[in-house]
Amino acid sequence: MSIRVGIVGISGFGGGEAMRLIAGHPSFELVYAAGEGSAGSRLAERFPGAPARFADLVIEKWDPAALPPLDVLFASLPTGTSAEALARVPRNVKIVDIGGDHRYAEGWAYGLADVWPDRIAGRTRIANPGCFPAATLIALAPLLAGKLIAPGHIIVDAKTGISGAGRGGGDSRFGYAESNENLVPYGLLQHTHMPEIAETIERLGGGSAAGLVFTPHLVPMTRGILVTLYARGRATTQECLEAARSFYAGRAFVRVTDRPPQTKWATGSNLAFVSYAADPARDLVIAMGVVDNLGKGAAGQAVQNANLICGLPETAGLDGAPVWP
Amino acid sequence: MSIRVGIVGISGFGGGEAMRLIAGHPSFELVYAAGEGSAGSRLAERFPGAPARFADLVIEKWDPAALPPLDVLFASLPTGTSAEALARVPRNVKIVDIGGDHRYAEGWAYGLADVWPDRIAGRTRIANPGCFPAATLIALAPLLAGKLIAPGHIIVDAKTGISGAGRGGGDSRFGYAESNENLVPYGLLQHTHMPEIAETIERLGGGSAAGLVFTPHLVPMTRGILVTLYARGRATTQECLEAARSFYAGRAFVRVTDRPPQTKWATGSNLAFVSYAADPARDLVIAMGVVDNLGKGAAGQAVQNANLICGLPETAGLDGAPVWP
Amino acid sequence: MSIRVGIVGISGFGGGEAMRLIAGHPSFELVYAAGEGSAGSRLAERFPGAPARFADLVIEKWDPAALPPLDVLFASLPTGTSAEALARVPRNVKIVDIGGDHRYAEGWAYGLADVWPDRIAGRTRIANPGCFPAATLIALAPLLAGKLIAPGHIIVDAKTGISGAGRGGGDSRFGYAESNENLVPYGLLQHTHMPEIAETIERLGGGSAAGLVFTPHLVPMTRGILVTLYARGRATTQECLEAARSFYAGRAFVRVTDRPPQTKWATGSNLAFVSYAADPARDLVIAMGVVDNLGKGAAGQAVQNANLICGLPETAGLDGAPVWP
Amino acid sequence: MSIRVGIVGISGFGGGEAMRLIAGHPSFELVYAAGEGSAGSRLAERFPGAPARFADLVIEKWDPAALPPLDVLFASLPTGTSAEALARVPRNVKIVDIGGDHRYAEGWAYGLADVWPDRIAGRTRIANPGCFPAATLIALAPLLAGKLIAPGHIIVDAKTGISGAGRGGGDSRFGYAESNENLVPYGLLQHTHMPEIAETIERLGGGSAAGLVFTPHLVPMTRGILVTLYARGRATTQECLEAARSFYAGRAFVRVTDRPPQTKWATGSNLAFVSYAADPARDLVIAMGVVDNLGKGAAGQAVQNANLICGLPETAGLDGAPVWP
Repeated sequence: MSIRVGIVGISGFGGGEAMRLIAGHPSFELVYAAGEGSAGSRLAERFPGAPARFADLVIEKWDPAALPPLDVLFASLPTGTSAEALARVPRNVKIVDIGGDHRYAEGWAYGLADVWPDRIAGRTRIANPGCFPAATLIALAPLLAGKLIAPGHIIVDAKTGISGAGRGGGDSRFGYAESNENLVPYGLLQHTHMPEIAETIERLGGGSAAGLVFTPHLVPMTRGILVTLYARGRATTQECLEAARSFYAGRAFVRVTDRPPQTKWATGSNLAFVSYAADPARDLVIAMGVVDNLGKGAAGQAVQNANLICGLPETAGLDGAPVWP
Repeated sequence: MSIRVGIVGISGFGGGEAMRLIAGHPSFELVYAAGEGSAGSRLAERFPGAPARFADLVIEKWDPAALPPLDVLFASLPTGTSAEALARVPRNVKIVDIGGDHRYAEGWAYGLADVWPDRIAGRTRIANPGCFPAATLIALAPLLAGKLIAPGHIIVDAKTGISGAGRGGGDSRFGYAESNENLVPYGLLQHTHMPEIAETIERLGGGSAAGLVFTPHLVPMTRGILVTLYARGRATTQECLEAARSFYAGRAFVRVTDRPPQTKWATGSNLAFVSYAADPARDLVIAMGVVDNLGKGAAGQAVQNANLICGLPETAGLDGAPVWP
Repeated sequence: MSIRVGIVGISGFGGGEAMRLIAGHPSFELVYAAGEGSAGSRLAERFPGAPARFADLVIEKWDPAALPPLDVLFASLPTGTSAEALARVPRNVKIVDIGGDHRYAEGWAYGLADVWPDRIAGRTRIANPGCFPAATLIALAPLLAGKLIAPGHIIVDAKTGISGAGRGGGDSRFGYAESNENLVPYGLLQHTHMPEIAETIERLGGGSAAGLVFTPHLVPMTRGILVTLYARGRATTQECLEAARSFYAGRAFVRVTDRPPQTKWATGSNLAFVSYAADPARDLVIAMGVVDNLGKGAAGQAVQNANLICGLPETAGLDGAPVWP
Repeated sequence: MSIRVGIVGISGFGGGEAMRLIAGHPSFELVYAAGEGSAGSRLAERFPGAPARFADLVIEKWDPAALPPLDVLFASLPTGTSAEALARVPRNVKIVDIGGDHRYAEGWAYGLADVWPDRIAGRTRIANPGCFPAATLIALAPLLAGKLIAPGHIIVDAKTGISGAGRGGGDSRFGYAESNENLVPYGLLQHTHMPEIAETIERLGGGSAAGLVFTPHLVPMTRGILVTLYARGRATTQECLEAARSFYAGRAFVRVTDRPPQTKWATGSNLAFVSYAADPARDLVIAMGVVDNLGKGAAGQAVQNANLICGLPETAGLDGAPVWP
């Protein structure tokens, strides 16, 4: 049985990765692609390596009133630009919004698929978590659920590859010559992802996350997120690892490792890696989370969510091993 | 039907990529892995993102006398080290040698699969082309077959990502700090791949390749090969492109593009891209070829060859789109 | 004695590098800086690491009618935008034009300083060579002067770091995520630098350069140019090396090496490295040239030219060793 | 007046950078270089871009009993290997030890030159701070001195370029293909730099640093360190910035910036950049420090210390602007 899917935002990195994953998906058929910068082009002009069966699909200008018959729409649009248009998509078209406009919005399920799959199945409007929140919350969930850390004093030192900034019109700050060999902190104490993380910590941990600190950094690499999290708690390293192994038992995409995870372990995959190091004497738990910002942090998680809402196996189209080296 | 495959040289980049491709292959089952550096480890220790069903496979010390029942063995060993051991592998085990010891060796078919699939099907000992020769010969084959260039005066200016140098014991020349932001020509007029290229040019072009010039360069990127080829001929750009489109019509993995190909178009895939620019007035044909050195240049081509000798569809397990960006 | 210098185009990479070199120059004092993107800013806002004595210089909007008293103006403007404005600079202000508008223009000396210092000293309008021509011509000059190669059939396979594309408004093709791990040929058979190279080959070699082939490639690194040159000639490797050592005897910035030069040898310096490999039996001479595209390829050469026209030692302010690694 | 200096450990990154800085120093003359891997070579073989006047210096095997007459010896040897040998260096030879064997050792001054210049001048045995400690302590010193943060609960999330791992025999973990596009935390809760940082915090802050947490990460870039520090305190951002501006008033190498510093601001220089962001309501002060790990983190600081102990201007040979981009 073929499920007809579309992508809006195909010119961007998230939309392009969704295309790649759909290309390898056993049930999804790409019947629609829309994008600002590349409207009017054949898909193969934009993606010379696209599968031959997609090559002649013409990228359209995004218009929710002119959709072909679709089962699922993946939306990967800049935050702040999609709310009105997505509201006009027919109700019978399921939507997975990779962008940031519907996280904790009314009528939308929050698609943290590895933690809350049951809240996603059966829904038709899914807001994919942000890339930083995905990495952060997957690492924190077992600790918060097990009351091993306090929700009130969590520090998130987050590092992302530069594709996390989007293709965005070619801002010269993200140009190769200025980004290469450069490590850049930004958005201190005011990053747009903070409320989403705080809200989810509170839902997971049953207490205020008012003390949350979130410091993102741009790292000179294309893909990958590592979050290093500092929390207060009295658990040992082993207790944290066991809590995580138990929490994610039977879940396909989260791997709990004894040694600190590296971003390259996840590149090109939908995997998340978590690990922990604790020192009860210092009231300290360090949690680490690694994802590919375009995989689990965007298109991979989106396909996982689409699988859940279509009643497919959660891993359909997502079992590719990471690309290494 | 499941085909039992093994990999020797799993610790290296070519062996690791073979593992990744086998993980996504519909008919191959990995039952054996051997490697020098990682013998005794579970596969998941070496490859934290390996598929769960491979995780507990223990990497063995390579011993051709102690193989389990196997249908196909992928060998990815340093050139110069494998001839004797591979000779001891039972005849009923098909071998695809990714290493350099059997190219144009007696009893071995030369596995330039996109050009000569018929010479490969039915054989049991396949020597995979080198990564530079693969990129070079795929770009040249249509021109040589169509007599659009002379075989005698070809200049190959070749550029490779650093994984092409192998993991090789950590030579500090390939260390990050010394390789990054560095472009390094090497092996001038004496590179080990020259005879293989010359031999194949002669078979394709029907004349001496004695004037062949081959200059490799190390480029600060992990994966990817681009060869820029300068030949003498009077064809136009269009005639070259048409010759290539005709030559590769119906072939799955070679794409002929109007614009110059970029290495990133192929990353993580088994695709090859070729393009041409000619100036008859200057007796000049420029040909360009792009591959992923670990894909079409190593493990991708090896799986394609294995498909051919096992009677499977040539594209089985190889239809993943490239990873971009 | 202090020489008052100005930079127009301070926001770009070439202008920024000129500022760095002037900061370390014993005789030059920076009294004027103009730039499009950063007009109105203090220099320290644009360059947080600028010398303290420059920090409060306010970047002005470029206006040739509103210059302060100046001895030398370094112009680093996009090609095609500077001819009219530079014509309005007072005649008593010497100009070194790093941009491309005055190479072989009437009244302008061509500033190939390592080859033709005597044609530069005493002049007041100097057109700095382009970055690709600088690397190419420094490597070719000894061979052409010694008649070791024919001027008519030279192939230039050129590779540049991405700063060579300029800051240029943030074209997303030069964005980090799209440029990293990517090697891109461009401008085949029609690059803007071809006439400049051909003209100079003819002046050096005494014959037509009509057969010149020039193929540039973008390499994922910030700085550095390597040109690999293929010419026809019957000299041996040793004869080429000796010709170059003799040609550049006593010259401070060109180093002739036995082994192939690497781009990182020159990073941050005004050095050029050349080497040769020849095979008389194949009528082949390979020449290699390495420069930092912002050093010898732009601002370094410009300061060298300014030294020559100001009657200073040629190496003033340019004796910094390359940055390694 | 010329001061005769030597370098032991010239083959490593720290020793090589010391050579570069000495090349540009107005008073230091390099008369001795020793190194393990390159003993017997001319300096120009190891460093093709070395100044011509150093080119023919022969690198010797390190032997403290066979030193030529020297005024200052820079030692850049692997930690754990130098104590005995350096003890045998004649007392009249001043030593600046870039390695880790003498930090807080008896008879050695701790060379945190921007903070404690007066404790260094007049001494003859200086232990250069480690690269992580340098960045961390320069950022913390004004806060600790001003009692704006508590010394007991400081979290150091540290990020370093890969040259920080040294050339070290080519460990394949630091190979290009494995390090590129990879971000790697390591040494959690047990890094070798912790005691040095804790000791200095206590000296600066007047209280126990027992709660210190230090988490280093390897970032895919050659040079640069950024430390992001989380401390408890009730100061505002402005109060922190003012404390730092006051603390470093008149100091040449530390720059206090309003916006978060980026590693590339410091590349190739002896500068340190610090900035702060605080939220009194959350009892939080974030401090950031940026250095070039081979500059202020190693050879730059070493030359600064050598200037201090030789009675030279602190900035001699160190006023080069950073290399950008």
